[in-house]
Amino acid sequence: MFVPRCTGLLLRRCSSAPCPKHAVTPKLLRVREALEVQKPAGRDVKVQGWVRSVRSHKEVLFLHINDGSSLESLQVVADPRLESRELSFGSSVEVQGKLTESLHKKQNVELVAENIRVVGPCDPLAFPLIYNTRQSLEYLRQFPHLRCRTNSLSALLRIRSEATAAIHSFFRDNGYTHIHTPIITSNDCEGAGEVFEVEPANKQNKPDENPHFFNVPSFLTVSGQLHLEVMAGAFTKVFSFGPTFRADHSRTSKHLAEFYMVEAEISFIDRLQDIMQVMEDLFKKVTEMVLSRCPRDVELFHKYVAPGQKAKLEKMLNKQFITMSYTEAIEVLKQAPREFVYEPVWGQDIHSEHEKYLIEHCGEIPVFVYNYPYDLKPFYMRDNEDGDHHTVAAVDLLVPGVGELCGGSLREDRLDFLQTRLQRLGLEETYQWYTELRQFGSTPHGGFGMGFDRYLQCILGVENIRDIIPFPRFFRSCIL
Amino acid sequence: MFVPRCTGLLLRRCSSAPCPKHAVTPKLLRVREALEVQKPAGRDVKVQGWVRSVRSHKEVLFLHINDGSSLESLQVVADPRLESRELSFGSSVEVQGKLTESLHKKQNVELVAENIRVVGPCDPLAFPLIYNTRQSLEYLRQFPHLRCRTNSLSALLRIRSEATAAIHSFFRDNGYTHIHTPIITSNDCEGAGEVFEVEPANKQNKPDENPHFFNVPSFLTVSGQLHLEVMAGAFTKVFSFGPTFRADHSRTSKHLAEFYMVEAEISFIDRLQDIMQVMEDLFKKVTEMVLSRCPRDVELFHKYVAPGQKAKLEKMLNKQFITMSYTEAIEVLKQAPREFVYEPVWGQDIHSEHEKYLIEHCGEIPVFVYNYPYDLKPFYMRDNEDGDHHTVAAVDLLVPGVGELCGGSLREDRLDFLQTRLQRLGLEETYQWYTELRQFGSTPHGGFGMGFDRYLQCILGVENIRDIIPFPRFFRSCIL
Repeated sequence: MFVPRCTGLLLRRCSSAPCPKHAVTPKLLRVREALEVQKPAGRDVKVQGWVRSVRSHKEVLFLHINDGSSLESLQVVADPRLESRELSFGSSVEVQGKLTESLHKKQNVELVAENIRVVGPCDPLAFPLIYNTRQSLEYLRQFPHLRCRTNSLSALLRIRSEATAAIHSFFRDNGYTHIHTPIITSNDCEGAGEVFEVEPANKQNKPDENPHFFNVPSFLTVSGQLHLEVMAGAFTKVFSFGPTFRADHSRTSKHLAEFYMVEAEISFIDRLQDIMQVMEDLFKKVTEMVLSRCPRDVELFHKYVAPGQKAKLEKMLNKQFITMSYTEAIEVLKQAPREFVYEPVWGQDIHSEHEKYLIEHCGEIPVFVYNYPYDLKPFYMRDNEDGDHHTVAAVDLLVPGVGELCGGSLREDRLDFLQTRLQRLGLEETYQWYTELRQFGSTPHGGFGMGFDRYLQCILGVENIRDIIPFPRFFRSCIL
Repeated sequence: MFVPRCTGLLLRRCSSAPCPKHAVTPKLLRVREALEVQKPAGRDVKVQGWVRSVRSHKEVLFLHINDGSSLESLQVVADPRLESRELSFGSSVEVQGKLTESLHKKQNVELVAENIRVVGPCDPLAFPLIYNTRQSLEYLRQFPHLRCRTNSLSALLRIRSEATAAIHSFFRDNGYTHIHTPIITSNDCEGAGEVFEVEPANKQNKPDENPHFFNVPSFLTVSGQLHLEVMAGAFTKVFSFGPTFRADHSRTSKHLAEFYMVEAEISFIDRLQDIMQVMEDLFKKVTEMVLSRCPRDVELFHKYVAPGQKAKLEKMLNKQFITMSYTEAIEVLKQAPREFVYEPVWGQDIHSEHEKYLIEHCGEIPVFVYNYPYDLKPFYMRDNEDGDHHTVAAVDLLVPGVGELCGGSLREDRLDFLQTRLQRLGLEETYQWYTELRQFGSTPHGGFGMGFDRYLQCILGVENIRDIIPFPRFFRSCIL
């Protein structure tokens, strides 16, 4: 009854690869692995990647091969007779040879080529990337399908990948359960109007059918918070890390229509400090992991893209973050020896010009601003019941270069408070499930969200958020 | 210029927590941590969670407290005088006391309570979950905000969380770079009509403006493959793990409108076997990690939800997966001593009844079916140029209980082949960027996608995919 496993023979038919001629094949190494070899001792290896440079001398041909595994390329040394017309910047190659110690100071090893095969040529005249030329991030944005082959974008995406892993580690190590909060939701979390609506591209409704695919209007999530609150009521500590959306018509260097958010929610906490502590730990621990896992990639940004950023980041990591109530912040702004476009007034929003000043005032150390006016904030934030200057237990983290990086709050866990507030907003029915969370074993709880793309902007000093995400989406632009 | 860090004093104002009266506070432990303590020796601890059972005897009160950190609850032993009316199934509590060795066989430790505080009561008459009663998964689906407090759903979501971490580990350990492929895309990847379209909920277009927010129609992704191909052209090995969408009108136990996909793309490979090997490794390694990290949670499913599943899974893990060409598969189906609704014919789709039979025929071992008819598959799959029975280098992985779990292919890396095919489809202009990938340093490459929710169905034996994801979205349903 069993079908025997097909041998390579059968499968090879479906492949265009020629059978290897040699019994012993050289070991295939990634560039990173090759560069890390301590005693190469002329071992036979094979490396695949894209040509970053070709320098042809009379006696010797030098190539640099990069395969995206590291910022550094592997130097290949070859007999000039191995050169071919197709061996150019941008072409893909497979190089076989002996890995040997290098005499150069800059590298441990080099590959002495015995064979160079051009896998895919690249016409340098048509290729938008230019050899040995640093092209601006802005220019490169036109080529989202090719810019990842530059040093800057490939370094950025390696850092992004490592930071993603570090965030998962951070929460896992601290006992959080990861939750996939939904992307399509029938809740319009903050009542914030600027949401995307979702319907099938080909509507084939009969006249008597509900016009909505899901029977109700449905939107792309702006936050997984309410869903995480559900889960914090079962797992105590939960987090999510996924895409969120705003149909934002602004086209600033800090906004995208599709961006990534890290969100956490914690039950049985009743102090804003506990939330601030998690935010600060997250920022510092994840950054330390990133710095230790891809130091060279980060260095590229700190050296060439944002000189001076290294010292700024070290300060953020070494100093304890500052805390300041909203009321204090308004006082500081009022006393500022500076004119603002928006006058700082208790009860009004803190604008980005204000954020900037507050951070400056705090010596470029990240600052938590907490206890915001009740009337500024959404219904789910916990009422501080503090009289005249009525506030809720909300906190924002402001960081140099970016402004608002995180926002969080204690949630209103008291059934009567929540119900009164929802009634006033006419949202009682919509959020019945949410009030039920307060009815069946409620706990004081809170959480926060951190903009992942802004986080990377902050640690690397990258000016424009469109250079942080592989395929940026914003008002009037959705390339690829 | 520095604002001094606020002390706890200042912050405590914004909290409703009473100041602790005792200088020494007992250590706060998660239930899991408490259960893992080897020599409890009467140490002072505090545990927070939800009451899973209350048994009141004349001499002693037993509680079971669960906080979602493990399937097992912590037994609390208390003086009956500590009981209160509010201490009921579902209520949230904080218990302080001494952790001691338990005399029971089933647990190492128990908590001898000195103080029990009901944090949030739970009216057992209104609470949809019923004490000591196994409610069906189907019944529980009505309560997506509460079902995570049951043993089955909380076990499932812990497994989901661990499997997520394991997938990230697997790829990271194997040198893959993680990529956030876009959710909103202007590509309609497979030309498969059933996509969701995205536009702002509040359109405020002036008559002379482009009616689309992004200037072009934009959709929710059905696959990140094309974007991953971009990245494989820079990083060699890449993966993504995120939500994908289908505006699918079917309401089966295997389909969701929003589901999670793990996708990988690898450059410099030209044999389907290499892709199959990654799929098989992924399945086996991730499952092994899950089994070792949450054995009790998995056991719950293998014991109570899908008896017999344990042996089935062990077989899948211990046997090498079977491979079978599409042509062979059609032969097997033609010779089957069974009638199918759809007659098996070369050139036609393999339907789920066929998949089921093939898996049965292979002794319930996962089977790769490869080399599918050219005319059945999308433009990006590599042409095998094999004459009459013209195929492409595509492969599907069929697994017991689920059917199609993974789909992959070698991609058409030859510029002329791809262009001809796109021309014929009238898609040349739309996919110009995609053909450019073949123009500038092309490599043979391939990849696959694995349905994450189906993967969990497969290893756990869960019948309905709606019980696998925290907040299922499907035709006519988007609760919360």
